Amino acid sequence: MSNTNTQIKLAARPTGMPGPECWKTEESQIPSPGEGEVLLQILQISLDPAMRGWMNEARSYVPPVRINQVMRALTLSRVMESNSPDLKPGDLVTGTQGVQQYAVAKPEDLTKVDATLADPSRFLSVLGMTGMTAYFGLFDVGQPKSDDIVVVSGAAGAVGQIVGQLAKIHGCKTIGIAGGEEKCKFLTDEIGYDHAIDYKSQNVAKEIKRHAKKGLDVYFDNVGGEILEAALFNLNRGARIVICGAISQYNTTDVQGPRNYLSLLVNRARMEGMVVFDYANRFGEAVPKMAGWLKEGKLKSKEDIVRGQVTDFSETFLKLFSGENQGKLILEIESV
Amino acid sequence: MSNTNTQIKLAARPTGMPGPECWKTEESQIPSPGEGEVLLQILQISLDPAMRGWMNEARSYVPPVRINQVMRALTLSRVMESNSPDLKPGDLVTGTQGVQQYAVAKPEDLTKVDATLADPSRFLSVLGMTGMTAYFGLFDVGQPKSDDIVVVSGAAGAVGQIVGQLAKIHGCKTIGIAGGEEKCKFLTDEIGYDHAIDYKSQNVAKEIKRHAKKGLDVYFDNVGGEILEAALFNLNRGARIVICGAISQYNTTDVQGPRNYLSLLVNRARMEGMVVFDYANRFGEAVPKMAGWLKEGKLKSKEDIVRGQVTDFSETFLKLFSGENQGKLILEIESV
Repeated sequence: MSNTNTQIKLAARPTGMPGPECWKTEESQIPSPGEGEVLLQILQISLDPAMRGWMNEARSYVPPVRINQVMRALTLSRVMESNSPDLKPGDLVTGTQGVQQYAVAKPEDLTKVDATLADPSRFLSVLGMTGMTAYFGLFDVGQPKSDDIVVVSGAAGAVGQIVGQLAKIHGCKTIGIAGGEEKCKFLTDEIGYDHAIDYKSQNVAKEIKRHAKKGLDVYFDNVGGEILEAALFNLNRGARIVICGAISQYNTTDVQGPRNYLSLLVNRARMEGMVVFDYANRFGEAVPKMAGWLKEGKLKSKEDIVRGQVTDFSETFLKLFSGENQGKLILEIESV
Repeated sequence: MSNTNTQIKLAARPTGMPGPECWKTEESQIPSPGEGEVLLQILQISLDPAMRGWMNEARSYVPPVRINQVMRALTLSRVMESNSPDLKPGDLVTGTQGVQQYAVAKPEDLTKVDATLADPSRFLSVLGMTGMTAYFGLFDVGQPKSDDIVVVSGAAGAVGQIVGQLAKIHGCKTIGIAGGEEKCKFLTDEIGYDHAIDYKSQNVAKEIKRHAKKGLDVYFDNVGGEILEAALFNLNRGARIVICGAISQYNTTDVQGPRNYLSLLVNRARMEGMVVFDYANRFGEAVPKMAGWLKEGKLKSKEDIVRGQVTDFSETFLKLFSGENQGKLILEIESV
């Protein structure tokens, strides 16, 4: 255990892709837990597209990260010291400790990891916010019936890989959209999508039409832009579009709205946004189901774990936007 | 009764505003009703923004009007001859007889007008498709709670004027958006909108914010374009956007999608399209209610009735798109 706490703070708000100028590294003292608090060593940092939104000044579903504030991030941590009867040293917890090595927290803001259910890193992916986003976005907002055709963009990403598998478990036909042959192979060969569409080499609208002649029933959107338009061109009557994210739009200043949104009218369809935090009081119904499917082998979770230091955050984060990563991107902090 | 039937047929599909080149006038013989059929004289032709969509070749919720086909339109007609026990000469009916003077129809495709309920022209407006669109769009898709803030675009138009009044009857606070001082005066002084916004002279987004500090709960959209964006900037959490139409976009080839559609995500809001024909089997629940409110004076309906000939259709239709008309636009055919 080093003597200092390396922290990555927001130095400036980005206008496009968040480059190194957005961050500054600071060393501070390792904090001491107060009464009822615990000291945590951060083991893994979850890297999520939503974090790009938190860097903007605009009002959103959570307050923006302030300039000079430690960058907000979901984390998996180990309890080092405890002044609380609820947690003991060695316990693993998830929380929102941010991009740093150590943090002090209150037990009520943490979720204890039950390592008998699954490998701890799963609690940042399939059993964490990522998996909960997939579960509640698909089932609550998308409301698929079995036999429905479910189309997912960013299908090889953290959320997308899970949505496809959940839809399959539910009895749906699944079509995943991803960039490149390797990812498409991953979709069909490893995680069981019925069809994969490579947006880099194929005409997405035509391919959706080929696999969904009457149109799609549920479209789970992680990317926005032209792929959202391709989906809108192919709605079945009464289709549901789940707006989970729009990674193609996060770093552009010239956002493109879906020009064919009137397809919603023609097809009596709806487009609805979701934020996973709204379902926090229902995670308990989803986690055991998801853990069960994991154990039965019906659900797989691919994690893209980058091992390094907190200072590798800036560069690693950009993998989300370059189309490079596959599965859930996690920065694992190597012990020094 | 003249000897010929003047018909307006679709001559060419428009690319922008549908000018005279889109239409041709033909004279044909007055048709004879077959067994079980009736001959109708068309008294009033309903002019609706949706008709612009029917002129396009694209697949929509109804098949496009074919080239050389009589232009589709909702009508109020009088039975002239009847070979059916269900209707007798003199009966008034509504149906989809199109832009012509006479038509033959089957009673099952017609709705008999109950003139004891209201003035016959109401059956093309507040008690017809227009009113049904307002009723089911607002209540079924918009799902307002009393005390909700309901914002309506095209508020002085046929549907918009009714939506505002229904929302008011339901206990909502209502904000109508229309173009020009006269229309705005009509909204607040004549049909009881709480506030009116003049999109021609005011900043719509700022004005919505002024009247709805926490954001709007229901937005009933008839216009699309920048006004839809202004509404998206001002969503309350869980807001519902009813996509009923997009008159600002019907005659443009460069449709603008709502660039800030991600407001749906941030605010967990939804945007849903509706087509009134889907509710046909439920009109019976709405018509008596609406007729009751009319009689009680709680609901007013302004009709913009243009008296003329079938051949005045082309020019009169354009009033819908110039922002000229106020209330429900109807072409009343003068007896020759």
